[in-house]
Amino acid sequence: MQEIAIGIDIGGTNTVFGIIDKLGNVIFENKLSTTGHVTLQSYINDLCSLIKEEISKLDIEYILQGIGIGAPNANFYKGTIEHAANLDWKGVLPFTDMINEHFDVPVYITNDANAAALGEKIYGGAKDMNDFIFITLGTGLGSGLFANGKLIYGHDGFAGELGHINAIPNGRLCGCGKKGCLETYVSATGIVNTAIEFLEKSEKGSLLKDFDKITSKDIYDAAVKGDTLALEIFDFTAYILGVALADAVAILSPEAIFLFGGLANSGDYILQPTKEYMEENLLQVFKNKIDIKLSELDDGYAAILGASALVFAN
Amino acid sequence: MQEIAIGIDIGGTNTVFGIIDKLGNVIFENKLSTTGHVTLQSYINDLCSLIKEEISKLDIEYILQGIGIGAPNANFYKGTIEHAANLDWKGVLPFTDMINEHFDVPVYITNDANAAALGEKIYGGAKDMNDFIFITLGTGLGSGLFANGKLIYGHDGFAGELGHINAIPNGRLCGCGKKGCLETYVSATGIVNTAIEFLEKSEKGSLLKDFDKITSKDIYDAAVKGDTLALEIFDFTAYILGVALADAVAILSPEAIFLFGGLANSGDYILQPTKEYMEENLLQVFKNKIDIKLSELDDGYAAILGASALVFAN
Repeated sequence: MQEIAIGIDIGGTNTVFGIIDKLGNVIFENKLSTTGHVTLQSYINDLCSLIKEEISKLDIEYILQGIGIGAPNANFYKGTIEHAANLDWKGVLPFTDMINEHFDVPVYITNDANAAALGEKIYGGAKDMNDFIFITLGTGLGSGLFANGKLIYGHDGFAGELGHINAIPNGRLCGCGKKGCLETYVSATGIVNTAIEFLEKSEKGSLLKDFDKITSKDIYDAAVKGDTLALEIFDFTAYILGVALADAVAILSPEAIFLFGGLANSGDYILQPTKEYMEENLLQVFKNKIDIKLSELDDGYAAILGASALVFAN
Repeated sequence: MQEIAIGIDIGGTNTVFGIIDKLGNVIFENKLSTTGHVTLQSYINDLCSLIKEEISKLDIEYILQGIGIGAPNANFYKGTIEHAANLDWKGVLPFTDMINEHFDVPVYITNDANAAALGEKIYGGAKDMNDFIFITLGTGLGSGLFANGKLIYGHDGFAGELGHINAIPNGRLCGCGKKGCLETYVSATGIVNTAIEFLEKSEKGSLLKDFDKITSKDIYDAAVKGDTLALEIFDFTAYILGVALADAVAILSPEAIFLFGGLANSGDYILQPTKEYMEENLLQVFKNKIDIKLSELDDGYAAILGASALVFAN
């Protein structure tokens, strides 16, 4: 009898779901469009029908332990999605209750960064850690924080917003309405904005001058080719992240910090200088003992793995 | 049969200890000098003899549940005091082991701010809270952080150093060797340094000009009398604290933030503007739901209450 969980990742465009076993093997994966459904109810009906269909095809003896969902603005305690800007349905959605009308198993929901952090804990590099920080560097900067072996949800389920700490006083305008948030500098979007600023100011030649529209991948490619400006852009980004991580360490004293997502895949162009700037800004007691590592989760499956980890962690 | 604990608070000058019951009543309190002992062993012997003497005088039926110690640079996991700058004994001191040679009960140790946070949880205003932040504003700024009902010790026992997050880039030199740490601005020492800076720059009249050596109490007294410069000093201090608390909220999402100690006793001169600046800098999802409150611990007994809370919390 194999213990399995369903992991669901709800994005603005697609909803991806998978059947995952306790070791983190993805037995099956499928998706449907998040948009284009007449009502939330019809979306839920379609999603649950598809999941039931996939489960019925399983040719193993299994026991379904639960369903985990990663979604924007998800409230773990209430099982709701609340005022998500990039979903069609507005207001407070009783998401886990609606899933429970189709499945009589425990249903959990949290935001995607928390889910991915749980994935790192259950299946990845944080298996043996009780205290760690997990950071996703995508369009924005998301984070999931572990202390005493548990994810920090905070009193209302919304803790772990490292992307919105004040990195640069009166700095760039953030999508959240505040200024100078960490994610306006440290994310795929942030590093592109840094590149645009640096290109405007700089009189140096740079491979980046040839692009109409720069992506974070272009900056990485230029850095690999030794482009000085691209290296300066990484250094600036790493400095801001390093100082912020030193603050996060002072608060949480994690055993390690895991980086995940597009920008993290720039490897040592971001990891190495971030580690140096963090070390420079650490209290003596924390120096030379906190690792910054790449996530061990498979990029392609991280979202549904993380969502399913909600089941095995609870 | 009454459950009691011993709470010990080790300061640079005095060691205070008390016998405390489960409701937080201080049955007895006494102290001895922390300095002037030939060796650490003779200090421990003297301390334990005194405690035994006091216990022997108890005229109640009791069961001693354990001993809790609040001390600088204490490591909860190892039971040690490590490289404390303001104690006579250097290096790593196996403190709980040495106490255990005299008492066959559980012995716990942590830093004084963590201990006070535990005191707030066990006896004070945080009894019903699982997620809160406790801040002591004394010579420095100490903090104890709760998430999921547990104190955050971090992987090495040294978490909760909110006083050393980077508040002002390249700001005042801190005792820790870094620059711009929160406690260089927000503490009794910090506010006095702000007063000195403001007095140098300001051409306004101020009651504070009459002092040879300003204390934080003088600044409070001047503010009460409506002194504009003193009010500006509080406002500046509150701004820095408010922004830092907004960051701490984004990370931990506490139900409340408790302030304790000398500067906190300036009441609404610090509480009110800090709350306003924090609210201005909060993410939308956290606005208008996080209290900033004064600690409910009795100032005079907070240190030993906190230390004893280590016993009842473990």
